[in-house]
Amino acid sequence: MIPRYSRPDMTAIWSPEARFAIWFEIEAHATQALADLGTVPQSAAKALWDWWATKPQIDVAAIDAIEAVTKHDVIAFLTWVAEQVGDEARFMHQGMTSSDVLDTCLAVQLARASDLLLADIDALLEAIKRRAYEHKLTPTIGRSHGIHAEPVTFGLKLAQAYAEFARAKTRLLAARADVATCAISGAVGTFANIDPRVEAYVADKLGLTVEPVSTQVIPRDRHAMFFATLGVIAGSIERLATEVRHLQRTEVLEAEEYFSPGQKGSSAMPHKRNPVLTENLTGLARMVRGYVTPALENVALWHERDISHSSVERYIGPDATITLDFALARLTGVVDKLVVYPKRMQKNLDRMGGLVHSQRVLLALTQAGVSREDSYRLVQRNAMKVWESDGELSLLELLQNDPEVTAALPPEAIAEKFDLDYHLRHVDTIFDRVFA
Amino acid sequence: MIPRYSRPDMTAIWSPEARFAIWFEIEAHATQALADLGTVPQSAAKALWDWWATKPQIDVAAIDAIEAVTKHDVIAFLTWVAEQVGDEARFMHQGMTSSDVLDTCLAVQLARASDLLLADIDALLEAIKRRAYEHKLTPTIGRSHGIHAEPVTFGLKLAQAYAEFARAKTRLLAARADVATCAISGAVGTFANIDPRVEAYVADKLGLTVEPVSTQVIPRDRHAMFFATLGVIAGSIERLATEVRHLQRTEVLEAEEYFSPGQKGSSAMPHKRNPVLTENLTGLARMVRGYVTPALENVALWHERDISHSSVERYIGPDATITLDFALARLTGVVDKLVVYPKRMQKNLDRMGGLVHSQRVLLALTQAGVSREDSYRLVQRNAMKVWESDGELSLLELLQNDPEVTAALPPEAIAEKFDLDYHLRHVDTIFDRVFA
Amino acid sequence: MIPRYSRPDMTAIWSPEARFAIWFEIEAHATQALADLGTVPQSAAKALWDWWATKPQIDVAAIDAIEAVTKHDVIAFLTWVAEQVGDEARFMHQGMTSSDVLDTCLAVQLARASDLLLADIDALLEAIKRRAYEHKLTPTIGRSHGIHAEPVTFGLKLAQAYAEFARAKTRLLAARADVATCAISGAVGTFANIDPRVEAYVADKLGLTVEPVSTQVIPRDRHAMFFATLGVIAGSIERLATEVRHLQRTEVLEAEEYFSPGQKGSSAMPHKRNPVLTENLTGLARMVRGYVTPALENVALWHERDISHSSVERYIGPDATITLDFALARLTGVVDKLVVYPKRMQKNLDRMGGLVHSQRVLLALTQAGVSREDSYRLVQRNAMKVWESDGELSLLELLQNDPEVTAALPPEAIAEKFDLDYHLRHVDTIFDRVFA
Amino acid sequence: MIPRYSRPDMTAIWSPEARFAIWFEIEAHATQALADLGTVPQSAAKALWDWWATKPQIDVAAIDAIEAVTKHDVIAFLTWVAEQVGDEARFMHQGMTSSDVLDTCLAVQLARASDLLLADIDALLEAIKRRAYEHKLTPTIGRSHGIHAEPVTFGLKLAQAYAEFARAKTRLLAARADVATCAISGAVGTFANIDPRVEAYVADKLGLTVEPVSTQVIPRDRHAMFFATLGVIAGSIERLATEVRHLQRTEVLEAEEYFSPGQKGSSAMPHKRNPVLTENLTGLARMVRGYVTPALENVALWHERDISHSSVERYIGPDATITLDFALARLTGVVDKLVVYPKRMQKNLDRMGGLVHSQRVLLALTQAGVSREDSYRLVQRNAMKVWESDGELSLLELLQNDPEVTAALPPEAIAEKFDLDYHLRHVDTIFDRVFA
Repeated sequence: MIPRYSRPDMTAIWSPEARFAIWFEIEAHATQALADLGTVPQSAAKALWDWWATKPQIDVAAIDAIEAVTKHDVIAFLTWVAEQVGDEARFMHQGMTSSDVLDTCLAVQLARASDLLLADIDALLEAIKRRAYEHKLTPTIGRSHGIHAEPVTFGLKLAQAYAEFARAKTRLLAARADVATCAISGAVGTFANIDPRVEAYVADKLGLTVEPVSTQVIPRDRHAMFFATLGVIAGSIERLATEVRHLQRTEVLEAEEYFSPGQKGSSAMPHKRNPVLTENLTGLARMVRGYVTPALENVALWHERDISHSSVERYIGPDATITLDFALARLTGVVDKLVVYPKRMQKNLDRMGGLVHSQRVLLALTQAGVSREDSYRLVQRNAMKVWESDGELSLLELLQNDPEVTAALPPEAIAEKFDLDYHLRHVDTIFDRVFA
Repeated sequence: MIPRYSRPDMTAIWSPEARFAIWFEIEAHATQALADLGTVPQSAAKALWDWWATKPQIDVAAIDAIEAVTKHDVIAFLTWVAEQVGDEARFMHQGMTSSDVLDTCLAVQLARASDLLLADIDALLEAIKRRAYEHKLTPTIGRSHGIHAEPVTFGLKLAQAYAEFARAKTRLLAARADVATCAISGAVGTFANIDPRVEAYVADKLGLTVEPVSTQVIPRDRHAMFFATLGVIAGSIERLATEVRHLQRTEVLEAEEYFSPGQKGSSAMPHKRNPVLTENLTGLARMVRGYVTPALENVALWHERDISHSSVERYIGPDATITLDFALARLTGVVDKLVVYPKRMQKNLDRMGGLVHSQRVLLALTQAGVSREDSYRLVQRNAMKVWESDGELSLLELLQNDPEVTAALPPEAIAEKFDLDYHLRHVDTIFDRVFA
Repeated sequence: MIPRYSRPDMTAIWSPEARFAIWFEIEAHATQALADLGTVPQSAAKALWDWWATKPQIDVAAIDAIEAVTKHDVIAFLTWVAEQVGDEARFMHQGMTSSDVLDTCLAVQLARASDLLLADIDALLEAIKRRAYEHKLTPTIGRSHGIHAEPVTFGLKLAQAYAEFARAKTRLLAARADVATCAISGAVGTFANIDPRVEAYVADKLGLTVEPVSTQVIPRDRHAMFFATLGVIAGSIERLATEVRHLQRTEVLEAEEYFSPGQKGSSAMPHKRNPVLTENLTGLARMVRGYVTPALENVALWHERDISHSSVERYIGPDATITLDFALARLTGVVDKLVVYPKRMQKNLDRMGGLVHSQRVLLALTQAGVSREDSYRLVQRNAMKVWESDGELSLLELLQNDPEVTAALPPEAIAEKFDLDYHLRHVDTIFDRVFA
Repeated sequence: MIPRYSRPDMTAIWSPEARFAIWFEIEAHATQALADLGTVPQSAAKALWDWWATKPQIDVAAIDAIEAVTKHDVIAFLTWVAEQVGDEARFMHQGMTSSDVLDTCLAVQLARASDLLLADIDALLEAIKRRAYEHKLTPTIGRSHGIHAEPVTFGLKLAQAYAEFARAKTRLLAARADVATCAISGAVGTFANIDPRVEAYVADKLGLTVEPVSTQVIPRDRHAMFFATLGVIAGSIERLATEVRHLQRTEVLEAEEYFSPGQKGSSAMPHKRNPVLTENLTGLARMVRGYVTPALENVALWHERDISHSSVERYIGPDATITLDFALARLTGVVDKLVVYPKRMQKNLDRMGGLVHSQRVLLALTQAGVSREDSYRLVQRNAMKVWESDGELSLLELLQNDPEVTAALPPEAIAEKFDLDYHLRHVDTIFDRVFA
């Protein structure tokens, strides 16, 4: 967890205090269920909840000190709680095993983290949508391979981003469902010493579903799927960040990250305004993706479980969710405040001497009876001249002066093909598909 | 693609012939749609389908030869088809761009690959279920950390695997839906020169959904999610493979891969019977997981697209699906023919001098009024003696001779806790959850 | 192995014929050493080498057919050789185990692959060096964050690439040494049935060093280091490829991949000339990097060995080396034939209205007694005006008309700071460091 | 950084205070060099060092507060230092750029981290060596595929680990050299405003080498190689950890992690003693390996640099080195205190009814004139009976009663082949190779 790339709500989920509070709730709910089943006295559950109602401060240092001796974190916690609650606490954890607490707690934490991330995505979608409609018909050049292709609109670029993050949301909802399960099934998952109804009770109280079959632990394919999903979302963040980085390049400069008063782009060069936020997002995306492989390696635990996954999750549980939360919020800010330069977009659109209209002429030639091969050759030979002139020459003029072209297509018919609006006819259709 | 780890049906999906056939169908369906819209003559579509009805041999070498000049695969293909079909072919590909063909073809291939993988998972689930019911009540030791914990049944181990691969199926269905989209939207996705109804028509014919917004290419977050899902499934394969490898260890030998007549385990040591299939699966899982990261890196293409993803997909499209198909089938064979040794399972269960019953005594002591801390200490001190005797001593006898223990729990009450069946009471519940 | 991304020399190393030929040489050398030690008859070694001298065709299909029964590749091979050589062949493989053959063979293959890759790097270094000297003093804008910073030369960009690939060579030499070891140490590496002198003899004949301690297998940390090194080299390829992709962007167009006659950039848009080779290299780099993780996961084999690494190496042995070989050669071609546009470089350099000289004015102000903070503020406020004018305004003029600036620095002193040559004074120093 | 998996010395390297202290030293050394060259007054350098001699407390919060406005960390630091030192500080950072400070600082941190890691490896090697000699001739079964193969010694297992970590040391030394370079070359690496001699001076003072050609930043292939090397070392840690985990399995129990008084293996099962340290190491290895891919992705920065690597390094710089430092120390502790059970090793060796001697009989039969194929068949058919008896039958007796075997080899000749010491003859040779 890097403070610079962390936000408080997500960070709080992973604090020791939050973790111990969830542990307590699991234990107390389980004790209540055991009491309702007559396995332990009702007074035991009451003692726990009564103490909890006093909103006690959880003494992390004291628990850590006990763990230093027992080398077992759950036992340390139980010991400390017993010291606070007194004798009735001995009924706590009856028939349970540590993983019942640890894994169910992780499920609660990941579900809460998912909820924050889902809210982040909603905010991002909202910002993208607003800017997409704002620039629905702002023409700009579409680029494949970094090379001018044909016109699009800036709104279309954002519509694509919207659709992508809408998919991210769908995937995250599935991933959340995958990890939000509760296991209270004992030492090897057989419910040997604890009734399955306890698990159902605790699951219900915590908003989780029951794990159908656990083996002391909740199976780690669930978590692998979760972190893999975060990795895919990080990829989508990198994509939009990369778009902004490209648009802000000096030679392109069609859009720019907001540059606040007092900000300095470089310690050496006072003229600099750099896309540092989106570059930063590119790096953060690498990290979130980097956590996917350890999560995948965590699946194949030995037999009913080994504990090799645990240290991995102590890192990536917080690091992946905190980083992604920060990245989504940062991206939302970038989109929200992005400074867009429609004039520059138009200028760039025009700078290639009309090359962006080459396809329409090609098609018109084909429709006029010229073979596809010949049509391609005719247009390409004129286009290459414009290309090599760095846009000084005009494709329209060259074509209008190429007798082989005009033999099939009169000059005015060629001119008709150089029409920007033609390319924007279906923007509404696409917006309907995306935002409807 | 490694022939040794490939099966013919999946391999066929990725052959050049299959790819070109799909390309043709996309082009011919699109031409038909264009004809229906009046954009091109009906004769053009008819010419294509008439030629196709002759079941022509696709001349891969000829197409490759054209590509060597044009350095563009779709143009090479179109040129070759035009040579076969004649003049009417010039209406083909009208208003389309190469990626319309390439990306929609990849969608068809990945959808077909998914169907094979789904069938693989079904077969695996079937095999696991059969063996799970066969060994529903075959007792075996549950192990955490590789150390004996408490009894489970071999059927429970398989029930866990069943639940895990049932999740794999759900995930793969979602991943299939994610990639099975059709884009026929032109050079930068604006439908500038092609009506969106063409896309809808082709999608319908090919069993795909329409891509809401494309940018020449179908967005690669879809493919990233697909390959990430395969990586998670590979993790589940590794998990079950690792279980078998452990069970076959000389000292454990509770189950064994089928060893066929004539097979040799070692060139040097004639006594060897090695779990080579599941070790192989462990390696194959590494490969399928290894393809996840390149797929994630493919998401952030530049602007409307660059072509860096293409080479990656030429590798991982076939390699990930062919390898996973082979691995799933191999795992099904392993499960299907696994030789299970219930006697050895019982022998191993018994070898720890009853240590596996330690928890029940602990709980009984707590219920008898001893503090949790003291109960733990009493049982642990006797258990450690048994542990150090390598199972020569009996935990039951030691406890029955420990006055501090018997002060709380009479010897016959202790003996009651050493009951194997107690641990199997909830097997039905779990089987209902998993297989119902 | 993707034919499209493969070159014949590297591919040949991984053919079954080449593998079996190396196997034979290992077995025959070992038999000779055993004969020299008196363990087997000299006639046995002679029979093997006599047969080999007839340059026999290796019948891969026949060997595969035997393996289908034995399920063991080395035994299948030995059986086939015995069929060819006759009775004397029974002394072959005496005291050896399959891994002695397999792992030593892999060492030979990786050493040969390294030699090809080293030659590839040499060719690349040569091409880079030639172009670097050609453009040693061709001015171009240096960019940080994609934003104009200060002038560099195109030769300096290439000098950096040269230094990076010189490091790649050093690393690959180390990686080659790491994997080029020979193990002939028997079933668990104890030399139980084979004299260590046999290993030394075979190592010497094959140009390998002796593995100090093997455990049936050569330890896989060696291979992990090898493939990790290939992954780092792939990263360097991606870096230079990315530079070219950026330079070829329409708005930048300072350099371009060679575009051959007959080549087509797009099936739809005849005006396109895309950096497809370097985009392809970006994708290939992803693949080579993707093979690093499986190689790292191969290290932790169980006990003296398990065979999970084997399938992984069947993929990545060929795939990583063949892909990297192809990529290095392709990159060499790109560099060799890169079309460079010095005029466009100068035009881009000039387009920011002199902003690239902002630092020198800042420093001059500081030296003239203005505080660093104030100097920065003075230059930044003028620079931002130029920035927002898109280079229409001139930084020099603005500064010369800013009384706060001229109070410290007279106009002519400011003008002196706008000198391009000033930035090139140390190019010789850097070239000496890199190429000396 | 996870406190639980961190040690203070390594953590200290990455504290803000340590980082700012290194920044100061770089700036102060550079100012001194500039003063010696006459570029700035000697009084400027003196002012800096005089202040530093007062051992000032670095006020991290104050610097952070300035950064919140400037959004630039180095400028914030310089501003704060200027506030402390006064007017003379304006000569600081003359002609330098932020990356000169940041990258050189990172080089110092990684070099220091390497030194700690090298010391860790030395300590580990020492512990392994001691235990290796202690058990040089302790017989134990060698296992391939988890299946008994032939005898080795426990010392040989450790000799292999020693050789592997000796390689780790060599690799880390190379990786350290790769990252320990100094760049003080200005905004785009041209030394436009700073003399190259300043770089040489600072490099010398900080124990670094001069970066031959930088581009504002030190090239990131260096760091990729560094982190990849840490990943390989993590693989070696996982290998030895996995060995211990296997040895501690209940059924094997040939060695055990030290179990301290008061330690509890399970909250539910008082009988448990789990290999939690080595399982933990397995997880930590996954993390260190997981950082390799982001480091590889950091190489291809845009043009002279972008800043996407920076956030990645803020994570993996500390996380990879701190985790590896902790893991190496933990592994050293495990090796140092490992409880080894030679009796159990012997018992396991004997449990297969002599199967481990099968190869010697095979070889003897071949030498006695039986064909290799027949020899294999004869031994295998008897071995399989022993295998299926779970070691109840004796291979020696079966062979001595197989007339086809005794026809070639008299019973007493067979008996000779069942000799454990035969397998240990070359232990000295191997130890000499490894430890000499």
